[in-house]
Amino acid sequence: MTEAVAPGVGTVDGSLSTVEAYQSAILQAITPLPPVRVELADAEGCVLAEDVTAAVPLPSFDNSSMDGYAVLAADTDHSSERSPATLPVMAEIAAGDTAAYGLAPGTAIRIMTGARLPAGADAVAPVEWTDGGTARVEIYRPVAHGNAVRYAGGDATAGETLLEKGVRLRPMHIAVAASAGRTMLMVRPRPRVAVLSTGNELTEPGTPLVPGQIWDSNSYMIAAAAREAGATAYRRSVVPDDPAGVLPALEEQLARADLLITTGGVSMGGEHDVVKAALRDLGTVTFRKVAVQPGMPQGFGTIGAGRVPIFTLPGNPVSAYVSFQLFVRPAIAALQDARDLRLPGVRATLTASVRSPEGRRSYLRGVLDGGQVTPLSGQGSHQIAALGKANALIIVPERETQLPQGETVDVVVLP
Amino acid sequence: MTEAVAPGVGTVDGSLSTVEAYQSAILQAITPLPPVRVELADAEGCVLAEDVTAAVPLPSFDNSSMDGYAVLAADTDHSSERSPATLPVMAEIAAGDTAAYGLAPGTAIRIMTGARLPAGADAVAPVEWTDGGTARVEIYRPVAHGNAVRYAGGDATAGETLLEKGVRLRPMHIAVAASAGRTMLMVRPRPRVAVLSTGNELTEPGTPLVPGQIWDSNSYMIAAAAREAGATAYRRSVVPDDPAGVLPALEEQLARADLLITTGGVSMGGEHDVVKAALRDLGTVTFRKVAVQPGMPQGFGTIGAGRVPIFTLPGNPVSAYVSFQLFVRPAIAALQDARDLRLPGVRATLTASVRSPEGRRSYLRGVLDGGQVTPLSGQGSHQIAALGKANALIIVPERETQLPQGETVDVVVLP
Repeated sequence: MTEAVAPGVGTVDGSLSTVEAYQSAILQAITPLPPVRVELADAEGCVLAEDVTAAVPLPSFDNSSMDGYAVLAADTDHSSERSPATLPVMAEIAAGDTAAYGLAPGTAIRIMTGARLPAGADAVAPVEWTDGGTARVEIYRPVAHGNAVRYAGGDATAGETLLEKGVRLRPMHIAVAASAGRTMLMVRPRPRVAVLSTGNELTEPGTPLVPGQIWDSNSYMIAAAAREAGATAYRRSVVPDDPAGVLPALEEQLARADLLITTGGVSMGGEHDVVKAALRDLGTVTFRKVAVQPGMPQGFGTIGAGRVPIFTLPGNPVSAYVSFQLFVRPAIAALQDARDLRLPGVRATLTASVRSPEGRRSYLRGVLDGGQVTPLSGQGSHQIAALGKANALIIVPERETQLPQGETVDVVVLP
Repeated sequence: MTEAVAPGVGTVDGSLSTVEAYQSAILQAITPLPPVRVELADAEGCVLAEDVTAAVPLPSFDNSSMDGYAVLAADTDHSSERSPATLPVMAEIAAGDTAAYGLAPGTAIRIMTGARLPAGADAVAPVEWTDGGTARVEIYRPVAHGNAVRYAGGDATAGETLLEKGVRLRPMHIAVAASAGRTMLMVRPRPRVAVLSTGNELTEPGTPLVPGQIWDSNSYMIAAAAREAGATAYRRSVVPDDPAGVLPALEEQLARADLLITTGGVSMGGEHDVVKAALRDLGTVTFRKVAVQPGMPQGFGTIGAGRVPIFTLPGNPVSAYVSFQLFVRPAIAALQDARDLRLPGVRATLTASVRSPEGRRSYLRGVLDGGQVTPLSGQGSHQIAALGKANALIIVPERETQLPQGETVDVVVLP
């Protein structure tokens, strides 16, 4: 009853794919979406499709980092509380003042934070080191050459690469682009993801339950997870396990989807696996077992004239969630040609022992707190309540069947 | 020229507030927004304003975790490869089948993953342990009581709290709510945040620069950061340092804002600090120095009849960003009555030494990679390019002026 998978490289025992082999197969099938030009305010969360360089030096002119007085440092060499340098104040430069000022030796010019340093000045005496005078100023300390001066190009030189292609744009990146004067950016847009739950046992949340039925949670969860991963996601209502229903439901989504995700209908069993049967007829989706727990039965391929990637995730909610993070998230990132395809990982110490099936890599639900991670009780792949308490996945390698309390483990930080 | 701040508890040296004292003062002034009822699909990222409990046990009925045969375990006690138990197959139960089945001793019922266990059965023989027969089935191994059975309530009992008030709803929480049959949730909505940059030196990105001017980046960055923190954010175009302009610009935003943020115009200097002058006239905003680097000058208060909270952040972009994460983010979370107000922190090892001004807590820009954190070069508060490369803030405590390579430090993980 199991699927044939070519044994050899990338398989664990000749029938199970490794996590990495399956991820590689997926990524090889993904073509990035064409880049689009968007307004800076709309670029957050998109992936940069160009390098952003500094058109001018940053800052573009020498300026003061404090409120104070522009001076020649040498004029203050012998300044002290008892014997301050006393200089006439010839002008005042506010931030944003674009007039050209020049400083004559033996004089001072009042200057505000961010204002352009006058020609001839080589230092700024902070107002706290002075009497704050307006016609004349007393300076109580020697001011070093370059004090409180931000030099042109001190942040970035002209032509310097500020942001690299492939970065997912976070708030600070938006600031960097704005600082470089950019109002439009070439980005890979958010992929459009359509999510379908299949299963005759599923009913819409809120409707009365008859024993034998469960409320659908997968489509809500996976749509939310896809949005969090950078996509625009649509949830379709539950699709019944009707061979004549599943394929049209999928085809209907092709017009608006860059990626399709189904859940359910792909266990390794048999005649009730409707998604599998429907997609097998299309001949372009491969089903395999992956050496992972939860989420062993996986399907991936492309459908339609546009060769839209499709994932068939297992129906158990925890399996669907873990499968999404391991396999679908990198595909969404690859559609955006992003540099970082995976969730961040950390090392942490187990506060309790854990078990794992032999030959499969487990991703156990846990709570990460500082350098410690606590496995949750309720590790069954249907136990969604425990997933709701988790903020991390504890990785147990394929070769291990148990790890003791105190062991250092790799942990995936959940979004 | 410095502001008077009451000395004593919460101050470092009688004139600087501690980070914590300032955070506390802010949080005391915030009233959570009224809760609203939203569709499950719109709830992601909002903060739950009610406990979600299980209306029924989860799962609500005993069911099979595998494709196989429902049996009485005792009927397979002596099964082996050589001498299998052979049982007539009386029926087949698919997932979603709501008919009532009963198992007679000495018989089997074919059952699919997720299907309801028939009355009288106490175990499931996985199809892999059998010959897969349809009229009769041969079972090659003894099946333990409860094998492959998920019991009703095994995930959660009826009435059990699944999600607690105050949690910010992530994809798995959406799944938990759907699993509990919920289609609507009471949440605190995303606060509406209006962001204004002030400064005569600021021009819109994309316009030609005259020496003395810089492109505004703060309003883009802070609006993006507010969105990332859970708000709906609006950016207003640059407001000039014109006393007659700043107050009307702020008042115009009151109608649509739950929180106002300005950047610039609040250095401890003097007459050019227009935001400060304008808000001082309103009499409800307090300016103070906080023992932090960057971001020492801070202003917070409420304005208008609705007592809308307002933050006046420093104008240097790095100062504005760090101030946002330390002080504004908790306020946005408090408007949503969220349980977690702050960014996550980890401990990491410094790969290089760092310096910090005495008596102030530094938040240095760094790159966190595994358990190591590398300080970036360019730690000036105007050096936005370095911020664009950072994924973490390295904390140097107030009492330290330098920390050596190899030291373990607290690190804030940036979103």
